[in-house]
Amino acid sequence: MVVGLLGGGQLARMLAQAAHPLGIKTVFLDPAVDACAQVAADHICAAFDDTDALDQFAARVDVISYEFENVPFESVQRVAKKKPVFPPADAVAVAQDRLVEKTMFGELGIATAEFRAVDNLSSLANAAKEIGLPAVLKTRRMGYDGKGQAIIWETSELEESWSSIGEVPAILEAFVPFDRELSIIAVRSQSSRVEFYPASENTHADGILRLSLSRVADPCQGRAEEYVGRLLNRFGYVGVIALELFQLGDDLIANEFAPRVHNSGHWTIEGAEISQFENHMRAICGLPLGSTQAVGKAAMVNFIGKIPTGGTVMSQPNVFLHDYGKVAKPGRKVGHATVQVQTDGDFVNTVDDILALAK
Amino acid sequence: MVVGLLGGGQLARMLAQAAHPLGIKTVFLDPAVDACAQVAADHICAAFDDTDALDQFAARVDVISYEFENVPFESVQRVAKKKPVFPPADAVAVAQDRLVEKTMFGELGIATAEFRAVDNLSSLANAAKEIGLPAVLKTRRMGYDGKGQAIIWETSELEESWSSIGEVPAILEAFVPFDRELSIIAVRSQSSRVEFYPASENTHADGILRLSLSRVADPCQGRAEEYVGRLLNRFGYVGVIALELFQLGDDLIANEFAPRVHNSGHWTIEGAEISQFENHMRAICGLPLGSTQAVGKAAMVNFIGKIPTGGTVMSQPNVFLHDYGKVAKPGRKVGHATVQVQTDGDFVNTVDDILALAK
Repeated sequence: MVVGLLGGGQLARMLAQAAHPLGIKTVFLDPAVDACAQVAADHICAAFDDTDALDQFAARVDVISYEFENVPFESVQRVAKKKPVFPPADAVAVAQDRLVEKTMFGELGIATAEFRAVDNLSSLANAAKEIGLPAVLKTRRMGYDGKGQAIIWETSELEESWSSIGEVPAILEAFVPFDRELSIIAVRSQSSRVEFYPASENTHADGILRLSLSRVADPCQGRAEEYVGRLLNRFGYVGVIALELFQLGDDLIANEFAPRVHNSGHWTIEGAEISQFENHMRAICGLPLGSTQAVGKAAMVNFIGKIPTGGTVMSQPNVFLHDYGKVAKPGRKVGHATVQVQTDGDFVNTVDDILALAK
Repeated sequence: MVVGLLGGGQLARMLAQAAHPLGIKTVFLDPAVDACAQVAADHICAAFDDTDALDQFAARVDVISYEFENVPFESVQRVAKKKPVFPPADAVAVAQDRLVEKTMFGELGIATAEFRAVDNLSSLANAAKEIGLPAVLKTRRMGYDGKGQAIIWETSELEESWSSIGEVPAILEAFVPFDRELSIIAVRSQSSRVEFYPASENTHADGILRLSLSRVADPCQGRAEEYVGRLLNRFGYVGVIALELFQLGDDLIANEFAPRVHNSGHWTIEGAEISQFENHMRAICGLPLGSTQAVGKAAMVNFIGKIPTGGTVMSQPNVFLHDYGKVAKPGRKVGHATVQVQTDGDFVNTVDDILALAK
C-alpha cells in the first residue's frame, strides 16, 4: 500500500513515520526542495498546481491525503478523479473558507461566536455595530497560526484593521474572552467506526500553539465529541479531524476545524495507545482503527524558531524529543517535546522545565 | 548529524526510524536493491567490500555503525580510518569468530559451555571424546539464526556433521540442556555511562527467535548485568550490545554476544522508556542516554515468512505491528508484533493469540 500526501512538512513526516511499521509507504508532493518529510517518504518536488506532477503523483499511489487544508482545491479535485482522496474533498472546501465553515457549524447546531461576512469597509462598520467591540477580523481564506487576523478594540481601528488584512473577503467575529482553549481529535474509519481522543487543553502565544495537555475525562469531553461527531457525519468523513473549541463558563464554542492531523494531537505519539498519525493512516488505508485511549498523562511543548541545544531536552526523563529536521527560523515550528508519565510524578515540574527551555 | 550504517535490513530500518525524531539522518550501504531500510534512510547500493562505495559512504556521514557483525572486517577497518566507528572494530573482530569470542568470555570470567577448537575430523573426534555427547558443532565464522550448526548425538554422526557444516574451522561445544534462554541488552555512552534493559526471556524454534518476554526484576538480572558489563569494559564499548545466555539451574552460561541492537530487544520500542534503537543512536552520536526502564510488561513475537493478513494483528488492543516491508519468503524475518500492557490484564492471552497468528 502506498499513500500519497499533498504537502511535505512535519505533519507529513510524522504520518510517513507512523506508516512504516504498518508496511505502508508514502510519497508526497511539495514544492520545497528541503521538505522535511523526505527522510521518511519519497518526494515529488513540484508546485501544488503543477498538473503533470499531480498526475504522476496520483499514478504512483493507492490512496491520497493531505497535510494541510490550504492546498489548491482544484488540485484535490484533479487527483480525486484518479485515486480515492480522504478526508473527502468537500471537507477541504469548507475548511478553506471561514464563512462557509462557520455557517455550516450553525446548520449543525454547533455553537460559535457571533459572526458577520465582511466584504468592504462599510460592511465591516455595520458588522462591528451589530456584534459589538472588541471583535476579531479574519480573512475568509488562507489564515493559519494567527496570520490574517486583527483584533479590533475601538471603532477608530476599523480602517486600519481592514487594511492590515489586505482588504480581502473576511468575517468579523465577536471576541470570546474564553476561560480555556480546547481541541478534540477524532478519527473515522472507512467502515464508519468513530473513535475520539481525550481532549487537549491548549495555550497559544503570538497566535502559535505553545502547549497542549492531554485531558482525560475533561468535563467538556462529551459535548466536544458530540460536536465533532456531527462534522464527521456531515462529510461521511474518513481520517483524522480536529475541532478547536473555546470554553467560556458553561459554554463550549467552536472556533475552527482542521481536516487533518493536528498540532494539538502530537502528544498522542507517546500519550495514547495509537497516535493520531497512525490512526489517520489506518483509516485512509481501510485498516482497523487502533485504540485512542490515553496512556498516563501527557503534554506537548512546541519548539518555535529553534530546538533547545546540547541534549538538554533528551537528558530529561519522561521527555521525548521530536526534531523535524527543519532549518531554524524565527516563528517556525521546528520541533516539539512530549512529557509523558504513567502517574502524576514530576509531570508539572517537567512540563515547566521544558516550557522554560522552549523560550 | 548523519549516521552511516553498514547494512540495510530491519535493524537499520528501525535505527533510522528511531533517529528521525532526534533530528539525525541516516545513510546506509547495502548490496540489496530492495533493502528495507530505504524507506527511512538514504541508500548507497554497493557490495560491502566495494572500496569506492565505502569511501563515498564514509565521506557522507559523521559517525559509522553497522547492523550486523558479519560485515567484512577489512571494510570496517577502512571506514574507521575516515570516521569514528561505534561499536569499536575489535568488538566486530571478536564477534566474528566463535573461538575467539568464547576464549575471551573465559578470560573475563564469564561462564560458558565447555568447548574445543575443531579443524578437521580427527580434532572433532578428540573434542567429542573430551567434552562428551551430545554436543554442538558450530562454524567459527558466519553463523546466525541456527545456520552453520549441527547437534551431534552419537559418535556415528561425527563425519556427517563435519560434512554438514562444510568442513570449515569450527568449535565443538557441550550441549546445554538449559531451563531458559535469556538475553541482556546494555548500552554504553561515549562518556562511559552504562544502562541495562531488563533481561529478555527468549524462545527459539528452528534456530530462529520466536518470542521474547521482558523480564523486569528477573533473578538472573544482576549476574547478566555483571557479565555484559565486563564485555563493555573490555572493548571500551560505545553503543548497544546484546549477550545471549542460558540458564541451567543456578548456572548462567554465556552463549554469544552481538555488537549491535538485537532481535530480543525489539520489545523496547513500546515496552521501555527509550528503545534500544534510539539509545544506540544516542550513544554513537555522543548524546545523553535515555532511560532503559520498562513500561509495563511487553512481549515480542517474530513473524517468519509472512505477516498475518487482513488487519488481524492491528485490530488487537495492546498489540503493535512492525512490518519491515520485506518480500515474504520462507524462514525470513518479515516483521514482529509487540504486546504491551501497563498491568497484567490480558497479557498472556494476547501473547498466545499473536503466537497463534504467527504460525
